[in-house]
Amino acid sequence: MKKQVKTSVSARARLAKNLRSLRARDGLSQEALADLANLHRTYVGSIERSERNVSLDNVEKLAGALKVDICELLSESNTAK
Amino acid sequence: MKKQVKTSVSARARLAKNLRSLRARDGLSQEALADLANLHRTYVGSIERSERNVSLDNVEKLAGALKVDICELLSESNTAK
Repeated sequence: MKKQVKTSVSARARLAKNLRSLRARDGLSQEALADLANLHRTYVGSIERSERNVSLDNVEKLAGALKVDICELLSESNTAK
Repeated sequence: MKKQVKTSVSARARLAKNLRSLRARDGLSQEALADLANLHRTYVGSIERSERNVSLDNVEKLAGALKVDICELLSESNTAK
């Protein structure tokens, strides 16, 4: 059997939680964030529901729109104040 | 025009560099790492050449195989000793 070490919170769940939190910090709607990141509004919604296996390029777009490092979007402890 | 804030080193480049470095730390070939992460050997090679827009689920598989947090694979300053 293959050895698999899972992080305690999945990467998808981390991204969903941090995205929601950082978007609220900036007072942005999903649509406004999507526009800033050049993504579709419904896509942002599905990321926040952990439904999407987001690509690194799109994580980078979201980080750019929120002016945070990609690691801040993917950290387990939410660093958004 | 849309405002885009780019990180100084792209997420793909960070992953490529950190993956190579952490794989070397563990003395793993690309094939051995691919096997541990349940990915294809040529896929791992293309990630290390920054050719792939890797999905979060696969970043998580690689982090699990290397027993590091996903943020360690995506940090700008390579934390691998």
